[in-house]
Amino acid sequence: MDKAVAALLLSVGLHSLGAAALDNGLAITPQMGWDTWNSFACSLNETVILDAAKKIVSLGFRDLGYEYVVLDDCWSAGRNSSGYLVPNKEKFPNGISDLADKIHASGLKIGIYSSAGTMTCARYAGSLGYEEKDAAVWASWGIDYLKYDNCYNQGEEGTPKLSFDRYNKMGKALNVTGRPILYSLCNWGVDGPWNFAPTIANSWRTSGDLSNVWDREDVNCPCQEKEGIDCKLPGYHCSVMNVLNKAVYYPSKAIPGAWNDLDMLQVGNGGLTDEEAKAHFSLRAALKSPPLMTNVMTKTDAPTLSILQNTAVLAVSQDPLGSSANRIWRYYVDDVDSNGKGEIQLFSGPLSGGDQLALFLNAGSEDRNMNASLVDIFWEDGADGTAQQIGYSWDIHDLWANRMSNETANAIINGMASGSNGTMNMTAMGGARKVYSQVPLPSSSKELMGSKVGSVKASGTVTAHVKAHGVAMLRLRQQNNKDEL
Amino acid sequence: MDKAVAALLLSVGLHSLGAAALDNGLAITPQMGWDTWNSFACSLNETVILDAAKKIVSLGFRDLGYEYVVLDDCWSAGRNSSGYLVPNKEKFPNGISDLADKIHASGLKIGIYSSAGTMTCARYAGSLGYEEKDAAVWASWGIDYLKYDNCYNQGEEGTPKLSFDRYNKMGKALNVTGRPILYSLCNWGVDGPWNFAPTIANSWRTSGDLSNVWDREDVNCPCQEKEGIDCKLPGYHCSVMNVLNKAVYYPSKAIPGAWNDLDMLQVGNGGLTDEEAKAHFSLRAALKSPPLMTNVMTKTDAPTLSILQNTAVLAVSQDPLGSSANRIWRYYVDDVDSNGKGEIQLFSGPLSGGDQLALFLNAGSEDRNMNASLVDIFWEDGADGTAQQIGYSWDIHDLWANRMSNETANAIINGMASGSNGTMNMTAMGGARKVYSQVPLPSSSKELMGSKVGSVKASGTVTAHVKAHGVAMLRLRQQNNKDEL
Amino acid sequence: MDKAVAALLLSVGLHSLGAAALDNGLAITPQMGWDTWNSFACSLNETVILDAAKKIVSLGFRDLGYEYVVLDDCWSAGRNSSGYLVPNKEKFPNGISDLADKIHASGLKIGIYSSAGTMTCARYAGSLGYEEKDAAVWASWGIDYLKYDNCYNQGEEGTPKLSFDRYNKMGKALNVTGRPILYSLCNWGVDGPWNFAPTIANSWRTSGDLSNVWDREDVNCPCQEKEGIDCKLPGYHCSVMNVLNKAVYYPSKAIPGAWNDLDMLQVGNGGLTDEEAKAHFSLRAALKSPPLMTNVMTKTDAPTLSILQNTAVLAVSQDPLGSSANRIWRYYVDDVDSNGKGEIQLFSGPLSGGDQLALFLNAGSEDRNMNASLVDIFWEDGADGTAQQIGYSWDIHDLWANRMSNETANAIINGMASGSNGTMNMTAMGGARKVYSQVPLPSSSKELMGSKVGSVKASGTVTAHVKAHGVAMLRLRQQNNKDEL
Amino acid sequence: MDKAVAALLLSVGLHSLGAAALDNGLAITPQMGWDTWNSFACSLNETVILDAAKKIVSLGFRDLGYEYVVLDDCWSAGRNSSGYLVPNKEKFPNGISDLADKIHASGLKIGIYSSAGTMTCARYAGSLGYEEKDAAVWASWGIDYLKYDNCYNQGEEGTPKLSFDRYNKMGKALNVTGRPILYSLCNWGVDGPWNFAPTIANSWRTSGDLSNVWDREDVNCPCQEKEGIDCKLPGYHCSVMNVLNKAVYYPSKAIPGAWNDLDMLQVGNGGLTDEEAKAHFSLRAALKSPPLMTNVMTKTDAPTLSILQNTAVLAVSQDPLGSSANRIWRYYVDDVDSNGKGEIQLFSGPLSGGDQLALFLNAGSEDRNMNASLVDIFWEDGADGTAQQIGYSWDIHDLWANRMSNETANAIINGMASGSNGTMNMTAMGGARKVYSQVPLPSSSKELMGSKVGSVKASGTVTAHVKAHGVAMLRLRQQNNKDEL
Repeated sequence: MDKAVAALLLSVGLHSLGAAALDNGLAITPQMGWDTWNSFACSLNETVILDAAKKIVSLGFRDLGYEYVVLDDCWSAGRNSSGYLVPNKEKFPNGISDLADKIHASGLKIGIYSSAGTMTCARYAGSLGYEEKDAAVWASWGIDYLKYDNCYNQGEEGTPKLSFDRYNKMGKALNVTGRPILYSLCNWGVDGPWNFAPTIANSWRTSGDLSNVWDREDVNCPCQEKEGIDCKLPGYHCSVMNVLNKAVYYPSKAIPGAWNDLDMLQVGNGGLTDEEAKAHFSLRAALKSPPLMTNVMTKTDAPTLSILQNTAVLAVSQDPLGSSANRIWRYYVDDVDSNGKGEIQLFSGPLSGGDQLALFLNAGSEDRNMNASLVDIFWEDGADGTAQQIGYSWDIHDLWANRMSNETANAIINGMASGSNGTMNMTAMGGARKVYSQVPLPSSSKELMGSKVGSVKASGTVTAHVKAHGVAMLRLRQQNNKDEL
Repeated sequence: MDKAVAALLLSVGLHSLGAAALDNGLAITPQMGWDTWNSFACSLNETVILDAAKKIVSLGFRDLGYEYVVLDDCWSAGRNSSGYLVPNKEKFPNGISDLADKIHASGLKIGIYSSAGTMTCARYAGSLGYEEKDAAVWASWGIDYLKYDNCYNQGEEGTPKLSFDRYNKMGKALNVTGRPILYSLCNWGVDGPWNFAPTIANSWRTSGDLSNVWDREDVNCPCQEKEGIDCKLPGYHCSVMNVLNKAVYYPSKAIPGAWNDLDMLQVGNGGLTDEEAKAHFSLRAALKSPPLMTNVMTKTDAPTLSILQNTAVLAVSQDPLGSSANRIWRYYVDDVDSNGKGEIQLFSGPLSGGDQLALFLNAGSEDRNMNASLVDIFWEDGADGTAQQIGYSWDIHDLWANRMSNETANAIINGMASGSNGTMNMTAMGGARKVYSQVPLPSSSKELMGSKVGSVKASGTVTAHVKAHGVAMLRLRQQNNKDEL
Repeated sequence: MDKAVAALLLSVGLHSLGAAALDNGLAITPQMGWDTWNSFACSLNETVILDAAKKIVSLGFRDLGYEYVVLDDCWSAGRNSSGYLVPNKEKFPNGISDLADKIHASGLKIGIYSSAGTMTCARYAGSLGYEEKDAAVWASWGIDYLKYDNCYNQGEEGTPKLSFDRYNKMGKALNVTGRPILYSLCNWGVDGPWNFAPTIANSWRTSGDLSNVWDREDVNCPCQEKEGIDCKLPGYHCSVMNVLNKAVYYPSKAIPGAWNDLDMLQVGNGGLTDEEAKAHFSLRAALKSPPLMTNVMTKTDAPTLSILQNTAVLAVSQDPLGSSANRIWRYYVDDVDSNGKGEIQLFSGPLSGGDQLALFLNAGSEDRNMNASLVDIFWEDGADGTAQQIGYSWDIHDLWANRMSNETANAIINGMASGSNGTMNMTAMGGARKVYSQVPLPSSSKELMGSKVGSVKASGTVTAHVKAHGVAMLRLRQQNNKDEL
Repeated sequence: MDKAVAALLLSVGLHSLGAAALDNGLAITPQMGWDTWNSFACSLNETVILDAAKKIVSLGFRDLGYEYVVLDDCWSAGRNSSGYLVPNKEKFPNGISDLADKIHASGLKIGIYSSAGTMTCARYAGSLGYEEKDAAVWASWGIDYLKYDNCYNQGEEGTPKLSFDRYNKMGKALNVTGRPILYSLCNWGVDGPWNFAPTIANSWRTSGDLSNVWDREDVNCPCQEKEGIDCKLPGYHCSVMNVLNKAVYYPSKAIPGAWNDLDMLQVGNGGLTDEEAKAHFSLRAALKSPPLMTNVMTKTDAPTLSILQNTAVLAVSQDPLGSSANRIWRYYVDDVDSNGKGEIQLFSGPLSGGDQLALFLNAGSEDRNMNASLVDIFWEDGADGTAQQIGYSWDIHDLWANRMSNETANAIINGMASGSNGTMNMTAMGGARKVYSQVPLPSSSKELMGSKVGSVKASGTVTAHVKAHGVAMLRLRQQNNKDEL
């Protein structure tokens, strides 16, 4: 028996599993937050971070669940004579412990970065061989999250065992501190972390670094499609489609507490059109990839805000069932773009309360109508029409139908919106986790359910108009009565 | 010299080999039985199992050799304070030791499941690091069979050595108990168990989990064809044809006591047509994959019964020579199905007493006549017509010609049939193993030999009409006189 | 710098290298002999072997250098209570020590077989863990040669290190005995023995077992072409062309004392036409694969004899320079055979005394003229015409032109030929090794040089008529005067 | 986060990284020099080397930065009774310590060769197991550089860990000597040295040995393109294009002190046309591969001299930023050559002072105009036009426009030129390193900047006429004023 457990349990009417993956109690749904790297690289410092944190609060992101503020590479000044890491004094004149206090005071959590090698990728002191000292220092500072990279790893890879042992050392060191620290592996899919990491980490990167490009191939990201399963040179400058088309093969490896990480969001960083950014954001939610924003918070514009704050999509990401969508089919199309690429895909997967996600991806260069039968949408619950769900009628909710208007978004950006983010005051509702954890989500909530745009009868077909390089993201909710067939 | 021993021995007239693979004396022919997973997943319990066991007896399956009743994942409640596994009290209020007694009392044997990892696939306590304690407990309960999975294995894979060592630990622990426990690896073909496992296990899975689908590709089963030889992500939802087309490359690795396991049978689970189910069942017999049923026993219908109880096919599975059929050729055809697939294949292989199996697989979408020369049918005994067998005439027996009628099957299902299963009373004949072990099988037994449907002269050609997604399964028996050529 | 040493040394006029590969002093040229497996498999016994040995002497094979008589698998009866291997008493009533004496008395040497696993491929006791005991026993019996297989190796493979360590154990054990024992690895190319084995063994198999088939693909031999470089399932029933097309990639790995072994000869075993058998034999000589005969010696027919005793071809195999030919080019052709295969190839390589081998392979299904420029024939000595050799005129000798007539061959077979083998009395000339080691080979010797069939001027082109599935094997000898260009 | 650090730092305006790769302070820019192998192989000796050294000085190569004279394989006579390596007395009658003194006296440095195996590739004593003794001897002789090969490595490869450990041993041994010894790995790309070696070595070979051939495929170099990332048989006789097309995937791995080594230069060795040699030399500079000459110094002709002494190209190689160019795009073209190959490529990358390299490679067989937009040329600084650099106008400098004339070159060769090399007297300017390290390079220096041949406006396109099998190598320098767009 393999991992098809979730699907099988659903199909036979059971929902309980033995245990969550990792026992630190964190990342029960994919972690949300913001990371310094894509926009600031090595130019991070206290000001940059506190400015971002302030905006995360004031723009309402914190209210919606984005809670981790992660200091990526280049925060360090190396080790002191006792072998402990010390922060760069120029960048962090008050230290990182003080910064952590400030972050915590604003109701957020703080993450930090290191590499399971002798140097970080930017060639600062790495943690290989210093796991316990580094974990102890971070815990003493109040760190809540570690992003742990793979540069300069002294050849300690090439079998799952070598990678596991190296990353497990830090996981144990974090546990020893007694402080719950979310543990995020960044080993770019090397040695199959989806196989070896679920018992020792809360998430693991699945491929080389994502670029803000839709589908252009780049020699710095050599592996394509199935090559990603055993990639020896993950690289960087991987396109949105490249990363996606590698990650479709192991949705079942994502389980509560342990997630496939397709790399941080590129929403708001330029390079992607609005449709592409929506598609990118939607697919990350569907595949349970942790939503880590990376845009310059202080320059957030309206379209960026209204994508990142689409609570109906976030409710898919944070759905308590924690089950990744599956790619059901894929076809190549003739309307290729300037990079010679063109394809369409269907994703679907179960959501809490018996709802079902259906996501059409149009990676062709022309808008099109797309169709999917209930047989396909429920394929993972029973092949060839054997799933019981196809015997019912379903309401179709469009999760992008209620995207915040630019007017509202600009009001938020300008500090003039009412409520915590102008649309939902989740804090007032008991907190984001509580809101997303409702089973079922209230049908009346357009913020969480989008708009009902139609329905489909038993054994019927769902249709959507999908823009080029875009998606239609639909949530199906079962109607009360079973159809008579 | 490699493994072509069996073929070579035949061609030079010798049949003795040094030793069986594993010395626990079990699975001298591929083990037969029933497993809870495909139909019940985590909803197994004492009632489900005893109901199934009762039907296995009353419907005559036990009489035909199906002897193991295997409790798959989710039977456990974790470990007690001494580190020993304990059954789930709700599912097994009387314990598993008591269940084992009941199973034994009905003339059956009992199997159990665990994983060579820290958790089972459904995330119950795994056996990695607890091999001796777990084996001891199972032996104390009277367990006869272990299915040992590969989930959450802490990176202990990636070279045959890592997998071997991990699985060997449990094999040794089972041996230490003194109780003969059939040891069935479920590592999905990772690290080539056909190479490393024959000396430590009775069978090993060859690929990701089988679905009840004929040939549709699924991203959850990424490896195709030869990729299965070194698959890093075996997955699940593999189609019947996917699993078959991976398993054709190592027939010689199947030897008495150590079998290639193409995963459990999907007969009776929906998703396959009657022809597909027959083909699936036939090919498993030809390739010596252990016949483990997974259908809901209490809902067995007539066509399911008459496939699973085709004793002429089972006689191939349980043939004492224990030699897997080989795929001799394969051609793609134009009459593809809706998944774009279409091909035809010929399998053949030696059976005891000098008989020969010839199996035509029509995986095209149209019925067709298929032909095979004796040169091809005996190719493995001598290339290019050098096999001595092509100098003889052969009678052709169709192993599906005497499939039990629905009327008879329904009589059995309704408890109104005479004999143990309505067709053969193997128990009266000394037991299934004795019946299948006859060399030669009596030509007069339609139950074991099917019906003679023709003959072929020396150097001649065998022809059969084969339905779409179906097989013709023929047993050739040499006529007395050598042809004059 | 890599292994292009031999070619480079030649091109700059130097010929000395630091050392031979293995220091046991054996196999300075590829070992010659006869092995029991292909014709007798497990039916070997004292009579079979002594009958063969007698014929090896009387038919003149010994005189030509075929010196090792190798007992392959199935000679054993397991281990005695002290853990030492004992021969099967029925097959070897006088023991193997006695057999060795008889073999030695006839002027031949004796080889034996085991596996670096717990069982041999035919499932007799293997040597893994018993290396020292087994080597000691064999040395005590007077064994001169070990063929060491790879079956049932307990997962001890998957990295070159694991394979090296396992095979090195036996190499050391053989050395400890003090008896020079030729050490022949049979690990089917797994983990790249061409890389790891030259310092510990005299030869290593490059692929799965060879069948007596020209080019038909077989599922039991899954790896094709470059896949052979990292094949995880070498298998058996590999065709002549399959094995060849895998072995072309590492000619430089063959050095005196350490040879690429493309598996034993299939000459005289049926399945190959006369042209195919000649081609097979020629290519093995060109690639320095040890010529081990496997035909039934007592049934040797004239064409078989005249192929195996072509001393002009053997002189290439046993050339003291010990440099493998390289495949210079390859083209696919339209005249494919019934297996859909058709291609032509050019091989060339240096021979002692400045001679050059040029071998045309026509694996098309029609006879054809083939051409090669001196630029190509000397490509490895200098790319694109930079080799100094193309500035000379060369005589062309056809190495098959003087193949022994069937009349002569039959006279030998019938015991009526003069001389030791009817053509050359090498023993009278000081022994085969001395004869083959002459530098240069005497031009006047048709037995060693074939017949001069033409010449080619500087920068010219060599042409030959080549039969379908056949070769033209040409030896070029430089004329005295450098051409004026 | 991965290695896209340099590009990201540039794009966000920062240039400082934590540390150089290896801390021996060597190869801060790619090492330059001359090696004995390609022209002399095992015929090296004191005379050959001193003659070459003399020419390196007198022809002005030393002045331009070529400082290491490397004795490749075959210098050794094995080990003495104490286990220390001793030089071959015939080749080095005065020993290598004396030779080192002479080399040092001429203002050059001396390199030596060994293998991380039991034998060198030419089968002299290897250093595996003798790392400390050998490093000590070399240091005692005054050796400044070690080229460390991979032959006969006893199976110590197959995972990065095995290769790392083996090569790390020698690196540590070199460090222990206290003498700064440049450490150059020659493991042909096995196990991904770009991943494991930057912390332990100054450079690492990326593929099998380079031949003096443009693009012809050779069986001795089996791996092609992406196969080079995990090549199990690197081989030799790799063409210029073969090596290039493997090395494009990891430009970011080249950092100051740790370089991708695409093997030594083939300029002046025949086999390449003048255009091909220029292209080869240019690409090595762009990709930061250490420029090691291998031509016969005493026979240097004018075209060879004027390629190797193109200081504008060398200034790219030795640019202090140390950032490799990236291949931005690649297209296949119809004008293939006699080997069936034809393609065009664009490379670009950052240079110090904000300059940008743009290199057009025309590997088609016809001359052509080639175009690249600023969007593509600055792609690595921001995808899809997001790089700020495209908002500026740029001057275009052709780095081959001022190639030394044959007249000047011959004057140098004949000892009649003024200045140290007839064009630039770098020694007088403070030394080559100082000259190349100027930021920015003086625009007025044609020797370092080539000739301005045009300019391109913001968002414009750069065009060049490129000969078949040739390159256009352009250096872009930003004009003072930002364009108004």
